[in-house]
Amino acid sequence: MIKLSGARASFNNINTYANRGMTLEADLQATNSFYLVNDIAVIYKKPTPITISKVNYPSRMEAVIKEGYFKTPSTTDYNGIYKGRYIDFEAKETKLKTSFPLSNIHTHQIKHLEKIYKHGGIGFLIVRFTTINKTFLLQIECLLDFLNNNDRKSIPLEYFESNGYIIKDKFNPRVDYIEILNSLYFNGGN
Amino acid sequence: MIKLSGARASFNNINTYANRGMTLEADLQATNSFYLVNDIAVIYKKPTPITISKVNYPSRMEAVIKEGYFKTPSTTDYNGIYKGRYIDFEAKETKLKTSFPLSNIHTHQIKHLEKIYKHGGIGFLIVRFTTINKTFLLQIECLLDFLNNNDRKSIPLEYFESNGYIIKDKFNPRVDYIEILNSLYFNGGN
Repeated sequence: MIKLSGARASFNNINTYANRGMTLEADLQATNSFYLVNDIAVIYKKPTPITISKVNYPSRMEAVIKEGYFKTPSTTDYNGIYKGRYIDFEAKETKLKTSFPLSNIHTHQIKHLEKIYKHGGIGFLIVRFTTINKTFLLQIECLLDFLNNNDRKSIPLEYFESNGYIIKDKFNPRVDYIEILNSLYFNGGN
Repeated sequence: MIKLSGARASFNNINTYANRGMTLEADLQATNSFYLVNDIAVIYKKPTPITISKVNYPSRMEAVIKEGYFKTPSTTDYNGIYKGRYIDFEAKETKLKTSFPLSNIHTHQIKHLEKIYKHGGIGFLIVRFTTINKTFLLQIECLLDFLNNNDRKSIPLEYFESNGYIIKDKFNPRVDYIEILNSLYFNGGN
């Protein structure tokens, strides 16, 4: 029904095939929980979109989905609010060491982030190179700049190193992307 | 597994039982599409959260969900951005003529909207009284004010009429809540 790269990666509970994306997703979940519990930001991962075609109702209060399919998401996975600003991002992992394949992101997700940027929001990618264990934040405006000036099918690691921002590994929050947002949009302050 | 009021209402394709919520949801979908296509705002309904317990992979590119359950949503159904502001709301219908039962909204959804408000976002309810065909926008701060000063289990229609804002029926966009937001937050301008 759809290409499974995104759906499989999201569907990490029982799908051992697609552990790509799993660790970053878990780290972001812990990070967003930390932000929420400490009243720093309100940012959630959206549920995986599913088309349901069969449901059973064994009782009035219970429904069991008996057939469904993963849908291609219309937007990015994560959004919310930080210091009054609208935040929107997509997170992806790659095992490659020297580049990030653009096939990992749907074109309409890039267009979505571009719209967010034009409407005054903060949009970005979080990309983890799992093999070299580096996680970057790349603003949507830098991604668009790359796409406008390249016909390449992947973004070289060097582009992230020159134009993105390393998100350092921490204990808690694990992927502290708000530290980067502070330096970029909020005068470095807390 | 969960109370079905919300999940059933969301699940309108094959569930004829729960046409409660369907019309407002369809109207909002058309409205948000209008905003999106006309580059006015970027606001989406979140997918219904589902816990998947069984999946078949008939082919490498296809996955069929064979068992799943509706989860209680953590947040509201709708969020996005308008003129740089973070927007977040829940939409509900009631057939009652004189009051809106608070059991229609989860407590954590109200808490979520309260957080959004405290973080500088715009949070509200859209409530349609289907029998009298009136649709109101009620800001989260007005809802909290009501809850702090009442032990009632429902909000009387008069409270909406005094403290909420009527969203007029229009052809396109059908439920033009941004017209209300303009008057409340953006000096009435476009």
